[in-house]
Amino acid sequence: MQVFSREEYLGRVRKTQEKMNEWGIELLFISQPANMNYLTGYDGWSFYVHQCLLVSLDQEEPVWVGRGMDANAARITSFLSDNNIYQYADDYVHSLVKHPMHFMADIIKDRGWDRKVIGVEMDQFYYPHRAHVELEKSLPNAVFKDANTLVNWVRVVKSDKEIEFMKIAGQIASKVMKTAQREIAPGVRECDVAAKIAEAQYSGTSEHSGDYPAIVPLMMAGEATKTPHLTWTEKKYEKEEAVLLELCGVYKRYHVPIARTMYLGQEPPSLMRDTGKTVLEGLAAALEMVKPGAVVEDIEETWRKTIQKTGLVKESRIGYSIGVNYPPDWGEQTISVRPGDKTILQKNMTLHLIPGIWLDDVGFEVDASFYITENGIEHFFDDSLEICVKR
Amino acid sequence: MQVFSREEYLGRVRKTQEKMNEWGIELLFISQPANMNYLTGYDGWSFYVHQCLLVSLDQEEPVWVGRGMDANAARITSFLSDNNIYQYADDYVHSLVKHPMHFMADIIKDRGWDRKVIGVEMDQFYYPHRAHVELEKSLPNAVFKDANTLVNWVRVVKSDKEIEFMKIAGQIASKVMKTAQREIAPGVRECDVAAKIAEAQYSGTSEHSGDYPAIVPLMMAGEATKTPHLTWTEKKYEKEEAVLLELCGVYKRYHVPIARTMYLGQEPPSLMRDTGKTVLEGLAAALEMVKPGAVVEDIEETWRKTIQKTGLVKESRIGYSIGVNYPPDWGEQTISVRPGDKTILQKNMTLHLIPGIWLDDVGFEVDASFYITENGIEHFFDDSLEICVKR
Repeated sequence: MQVFSREEYLGRVRKTQEKMNEWGIELLFISQPANMNYLTGYDGWSFYVHQCLLVSLDQEEPVWVGRGMDANAARITSFLSDNNIYQYADDYVHSLVKHPMHFMADIIKDRGWDRKVIGVEMDQFYYPHRAHVELEKSLPNAVFKDANTLVNWVRVVKSDKEIEFMKIAGQIASKVMKTAQREIAPGVRECDVAAKIAEAQYSGTSEHSGDYPAIVPLMMAGEATKTPHLTWTEKKYEKEEAVLLELCGVYKRYHVPIARTMYLGQEPPSLMRDTGKTVLEGLAAALEMVKPGAVVEDIEETWRKTIQKTGLVKESRIGYSIGVNYPPDWGEQTISVRPGDKTILQKNMTLHLIPGIWLDDVGFEVDASFYITENGIEHFFDDSLEICVKR
Repeated sequence: MQVFSREEYLGRVRKTQEKMNEWGIELLFISQPANMNYLTGYDGWSFYVHQCLLVSLDQEEPVWVGRGMDANAARITSFLSDNNIYQYADDYVHSLVKHPMHFMADIIKDRGWDRKVIGVEMDQFYYPHRAHVELEKSLPNAVFKDANTLVNWVRVVKSDKEIEFMKIAGQIASKVMKTAQREIAPGVRECDVAAKIAEAQYSGTSEHSGDYPAIVPLMMAGEATKTPHLTWTEKKYEKEEAVLLELCGVYKRYHVPIARTMYLGQEPPSLMRDTGKTVLEGLAAALEMVKPGAVVEDIEETWRKTIQKTGLVKESRIGYSIGVNYPPDWGEQTISVRPGDKTILQKNMTLHLIPGIWLDDVGFEVDASFYITENGIEHFFDDSLEICVKR
């Protein structure tokens, strides 16, 4: 039932092994659900308990270790052979005396990997401090190294098949945004719009299933438009209210985000219109720069210089890399479009540029989600960038 | 805009401070979104970057520290005064040189808390290993202690107001399950049912907004019923197929899960019927035991002894405490209904008993979500426990 061919997964594992060689890592201990999925196809909402994927330089297939009841999910969704799937007993879950890392350490010993240089994802949310302490204690002969974002950097250039998946996610994203713009109107409850958005996200298109996004619909109205990460309430939309929407289309865990601004009234206030105009100018100038060979920080600089003349200042990054992901984030934690990021862009990288403005007196959101082609970019959707005004 | 009164939040903080005293902790560093929400009302999907709440023994109000763009969300949703809200600059996000923990450590120093005994949530997914390393390095005079689940144990007994919220969540849960049972039928795509489930979850009731669940709809059909944590695909339901559903109703971050089994055909296979009968007997016997003063492990023992005679064996825990939560888990990580849990039940504790069976030859799910009253329990919903058969 896995989504890609065994060959595609094995190719990803080989690229990971090459990077492990570069980074001086012999065994990679992976906790991030997106990395586990990317390398094996494993897909289950089981990441609220400890689980891992082990990639060794001396073995073609990775090893999955997780909770007993989830082993069948690994058998169903991953390409792994049964002898590379291990399950721990349920009394390891949220226990004060046993820890799943003890079980995982025993497997590492059994496989003869306990004297290796072991890379762990030190700043990943699915690798808490205690996990490291228990693992280190159980493997006194290993040397631990930080392998944070190692697999994420393998993920950064997509295969053609992955681009196809993201095109489908783009179709879903566009449908999702059109649904939101259709449903939002004065007098309608925010939660009822959220419901229609989720319906569009999950159902997908007539040909392809939608999937759950790594971030639920972010939808700020009125006072809430001065911040970007709020969800919905039972409040009804009001006349003369601005609405910021950051939504997403997802296909088989591949994300394409979409963000737009709405105004419910005759005409948006002039500050909002002016801000929108400036942001669109800056975004267009930034997008002009994107092609293979361009340096990421130069794109941000172009944006910054374009908007500078208007006095608008945006302190936060204007974009990041996207692809396969799980809650809590659809960003890939690799490329950040901001000063200091010297990544050189390549064909089949996929980015989300979102130069959002969340100030006390005005909020504005618009974005572009695209992949890099031989000479420039191809957008995943072509929805209008203008403020959607509903009278 | 916060959900509870300032007094309710301050009461929760005081209970937390009492437990800090018991555990020998002077400053509590909280990373878990559910604990941040519980103590202040803070509610934003910002937990994909580092943020924290600081509770000190010498201060009534906690201190919130997060990313710049989310500070307005703290101002809008929490009861905190502006001088207890701190924001870090955006170049701390996913940076290789700066770390948000450095910024947080500086605040701890400024407040004179850097020689205290600091409790951190060591086994929480929102407290990765690197966070601890950077914090410890930045606060050489502090003593660190594990405060994992400290606030979770404060959360375990609900206020009457919280019970009211969970009753609303229970109404939503019931509506969600009825929606799933109505929509699922041979020939319908799983993703289209997931869409209707999400719609019901987000819209809530005509009076109350639904909220997003900490776990998306888990819906296993056919072969997938041998494991509990899979989501939907574009596959159409087939005749003579079993379907397991673990869903949820959520109101203002309070969760009430609901799980049921369906069969699409004339009659479920006899193994499934027999398994269902045994589980229902075991569940009923377990529920009989629940009241203030009962010991958690005794409830599991009653369940186990009841089903023992039939030869059915379930290795995993049969339930846990529920309440306010965020992805990736709606379980509270406190009470686990299994051998060894000696917690004594009290009035206004809220539990989810889910004695699910996920075997290679049969899957069966049913549950009960309830709160403990003076003498027994009150269910949050009263949906039929029988297999829902659709011909």
